[in-house]
Amino acid sequence: MVLRGLFVGRFQPPHKGHLEIIRKILNEVDELIIIIGSAQYNYTLRNPFTTGERIWMLREALREYDIDLSRIIIVPLNDIENNALWVRYVQTHTPPFSIVYTGNEFVAKLFKDMNVEVKMVDMIERDKYSGTRIRELMIKGSDEWKEFVPKSVVKIIEIIRGVERLKIVARTSL
Amino acid sequence: MVLRGLFVGRFQPPHKGHLEIIRKILNEVDELIIIIGSAQYNYTLRNPFTTGERIWMLREALREYDIDLSRIIIVPLNDIENNALWVRYVQTHTPPFSIVYTGNEFVAKLFKDMNVEVKMVDMIERDKYSGTRIRELMIKGSDEWKEFVPKSVVKIIEIIRGVERLKIVARTSL
Amino acid sequence: MVLRGLFVGRFQPPHKGHLEIIRKILNEVDELIIIIGSAQYNYTLRNPFTTGERIWMLREALREYDIDLSRIIIVPLNDIENNALWVRYVQTHTPPFSIVYTGNEFVAKLFKDMNVEVKMVDMIERDKYSGTRIRELMIKGSDEWKEFVPKSVVKIIEIIRGVERLKIVARTSL
Amino acid sequence: MVLRGLFVGRFQPPHKGHLEIIRKILNEVDELIIIIGSAQYNYTLRNPFTTGERIWMLREALREYDIDLSRIIIVPLNDIENNALWVRYVQTHTPPFSIVYTGNEFVAKLFKDMNVEVKMVDMIERDKYSGTRIRELMIKGSDEWKEFVPKSVVKIIEIIRGVERLKIVARTSL
Amino acid sequence: MVLRGLFVGRFQPPHKGHLEIIRKILNEVDELIIIIGSAQYNYTLRNPFTTGERIWMLREALREYDIDLSRIIIVPLNDIENNALWVRYVQTHTPPFSIVYTGNEFVAKLFKDMNVEVKMVDMIERDKYSGTRIRELMIKGSDEWKEFVPKSVVKIIEIIRGVERLKIVARTSL
Amino acid sequence: MVLRGLFVGRFQPPHKGHLEIIRKILNEVDELIIIIGSAQYNYTLRNPFTTGERIWMLREALREYDIDLSRIIIVPLNDIENNALWVRYVQTHTPPFSIVYTGNEFVAKLFKDMNVEVKMVDMIERDKYSGTRIRELMIKGSDEWKEFVPKSVVKIIEIIRGVERLKIVARTSL
Repeated sequence: MVLRGLFVGRFQPPHKGHLEIIRKILNEVDELIIIIGSAQYNYTLRNPFTTGERIWMLREALREYDIDLSRIIIVPLNDIENNALWVRYVQTHTPPFSIVYTGNEFVAKLFKDMNVEVKMVDMIERDKYSGTRIRELMIKGSDEWKEFVPKSVVKIIEIIRGVERLKIVARTSL
Repeated sequence: MVLRGLFVGRFQPPHKGHLEIIRKILNEVDELIIIIGSAQYNYTLRNPFTTGERIWMLREALREYDIDLSRIIIVPLNDIENNALWVRYVQTHTPPFSIVYTGNEFVAKLFKDMNVEVKMVDMIERDKYSGTRIRELMIKGSDEWKEFVPKSVVKIIEIIRGVERLKIVARTSL
Repeated sequence: MVLRGLFVGRFQPPHKGHLEIIRKILNEVDELIIIIGSAQYNYTLRNPFTTGERIWMLREALREYDIDLSRIIIVPLNDIENNALWVRYVQTHTPPFSIVYTGNEFVAKLFKDMNVEVKMVDMIERDKYSGTRIRELMIKGSDEWKEFVPKSVVKIIEIIRGVERLKIVARTSL
Repeated sequence: MVLRGLFVGRFQPPHKGHLEIIRKILNEVDELIIIIGSAQYNYTLRNPFTTGERIWMLREALREYDIDLSRIIIVPLNDIENNALWVRYVQTHTPPFSIVYTGNEFVAKLFKDMNVEVKMVDMIERDKYSGTRIRELMIKGSDEWKEFVPKSVVKIIEIIRGVERLKIVARTSL
Repeated sequence: MVLRGLFVGRFQPPHKGHLEIIRKILNEVDELIIIIGSAQYNYTLRNPFTTGERIWMLREALREYDIDLSRIIIVPLNDIENNALWVRYVQTHTPPFSIVYTGNEFVAKLFKDMNVEVKMVDMIERDKYSGTRIRELMIKGSDEWKEFVPKSVVKIIEIIRGVERLKIVARTSL
Repeated sequence: MVLRGLFVGRFQPPHKGHLEIIRKILNEVDELIIIIGSAQYNYTLRNPFTTGERIWMLREALREYDIDLSRIIIVPLNDIENNALWVRYVQTHTPPFSIVYTGNEFVAKLFKDMNVEVKMVDMIERDKYSGTRIRELMIKGSDEWKEFVPKSVVKIIEIIRGVERLKIVARTSL
């Protein structure tokens, strides 16, 4: 019987903290479903990158970390307003899974309330490996963010001129 | 001819202030339509409880206050973005009513602009009986909130472990 | 412990078949949740009446049948596209219930797949007491439909000129 | 005081019947609001053209008929499911108007139920000047449709290769 | 060949800064498409006026400035969450255009990323002619805002009692 | 430079025709994006299986065919009403791709209108390998459908009791 786990993130952008956790979880499960949350948003402060760009970055980063892509199931998912519906919403968009790995207490609560097993995972060095912090460094104009994301992610952000995009978003809005 | 009134709230959770007003309004009308607004939200800071939980709490609280449930029409309603449409939206979801009771100047304005009669009602001791304040007390860990809601509401919040839920929501978010 | 049942219909319009079933179910449960489905539609062939009109008709019909309205919880509910989500969607909009009564095999399937107990109920004389047939009679211009719905429903349909409305809908569309 | 009228259509595509009616209405009002309905659809059998294309065609056709464009207010509008809300929805998207011109009994019913004055207009030679018929001719491969629409509309449909598009839609679907 | 430009705003309300820019752009193009953005919102702090009211104000203001209304194409447009989709969304709602005029760096970025030509325009005296500032003055109760909008806009805001509306919105919310 | 292709289907369920085409396309591209369309629907005649079930079946089928899963990017996608927006919608949900493979003339038209290269592919023995036909056989109660889908798909459909589900859907509806 295949053991499938689930991990949730927004991946704005994928960073080394994500990759380390994913690597660890893969020691415990056969396949890992990775939910890309808030999939409907992009070109915003909190969600600068499109779902397509996030899938692209995540796959290249996994490859860079020598993670077997065939064991990974990436599923983008829009946010919904009815949070009490969210776990079932996840379940209708994924193959069956039996365990959820998360560092987020709210995500854990939602799954536990629906009787799904949850394992809390510690993000390594959360102050360093944080999407919020990485986006702030980009906006400030510091190149320091490049230390916190895989090289392949740096490369894609350069191709799509992601830092310029985020700076414009930070200065203005529609 | 049946005289129907309408009262609007989010009931997060129903508190004694709500119940006192409802009791008073029932002296003036035959039936009262109670709109549960922001019905699409739950597990958030402003809207911790689901629509189903709010209907449940409200009914038990009305019973506790010996209010005849057969005179009450509870109608959950999602928020809509087009506020100028909202009154008509209410009307398509309710039996005919001829008077709106509200303590909210904005609700009053919307109904008046559509030529519906409005009676302003004073929430008793608004500083005490306030959903916002009750939720803040829950988050702080004080049991003081139990004084401000009917006993039956306290009981349901305990059954659904609502305080724990709200604390988690306050600490994190999806 | 309160035993709550659930019954689902569109009530376009409420007819004697509905009322008979509701009466029977109330012999088995303390409270009955009645879902008014397809709540977002009106002024269409299949759904001529608004949610508000349906709540109104249903309440008056229940009264006419001497059914205790305080034991009834009417909840209007929009259809959603993701049917596999629907049971959970119902649950977030209702107080807890432990048994579903339905004559519809599809509704039964959805609840069973989510491990909710289902009791199949037989609509009495389904060929007579059927919303579809009642609407067809209205469109044809026959008054025969009045035999199949409670008197209070006839009266409301006259007040809102529902037959005229349905005939126009049948002849044209937006 | 400015007298404003309102006329509703889908304009798939605008045809000579539309133009004749618009010309007549303009003898009675100062300004005419033209609603382009079903604005959210395109590349379908019933709605092959985008809202942008319909605005474009309608404006060029009005010009061809020497109608003063400054007296015309074109407003695209998505369909909504709650038809009982539709008139108010129109009103929140248009300058104030006092009279509705329509050949559609259902549109007339909706406005009358909201106490808006309605004048029924006769489409001239409805069997000839009909969007449905024009689209059928296009699909059949007959050039006869060109007689029923203004020259400027023929020209735009050629630029956007609209007939080819409609034929493909008729043969397949997403 | 007709040269069409595009200009985007929320027009809450239309002010002299808007009108001056529109006048200038019309020296460079044959027709100007004016997008009224955030069309789904009204009766809010940022968007007090309905789309219909904004169309009305904008047309009267253009007339007051002796701008030929037949060269103007006003198109209301809802906001969407997927910003990367927005330019294409605009294109499906408008006749073809070849140049975008904007003072907003974010709008410029979105169009440039889709290879549409953009000309940055300077809002004259941006500190004076700003919707945000005009709404703040209205809320404060100062009449100074009347200097910053065309007379015809002042008149419409008086007819719809827009200042009272905005003050109520500022004091309360649904 | 990585060459990425795109293929679109609803996969209700994945059948041998799909697998043969995917195998062929993989001779021409490095990576293949597979869009699972109509992702929002399930438990319907045309779309009996959830998105999660379709992802699951598709992955197991690809494995059965010895196709390298790490070269496949599965992306579920909801239908949208504005078809003219659809290609851009796809692009915001996928890594960059340069060629679309499809047997559907309408899909081809949409991509060509947006200047994306399209290669028409022939479904092998379309009369045999067709989702519609497979679902019809399931409903009829014939086991013949099992010949047309990979063994791993048969197995999953048995686990989820998919044939029973489809039969119920065919007999009734919500």
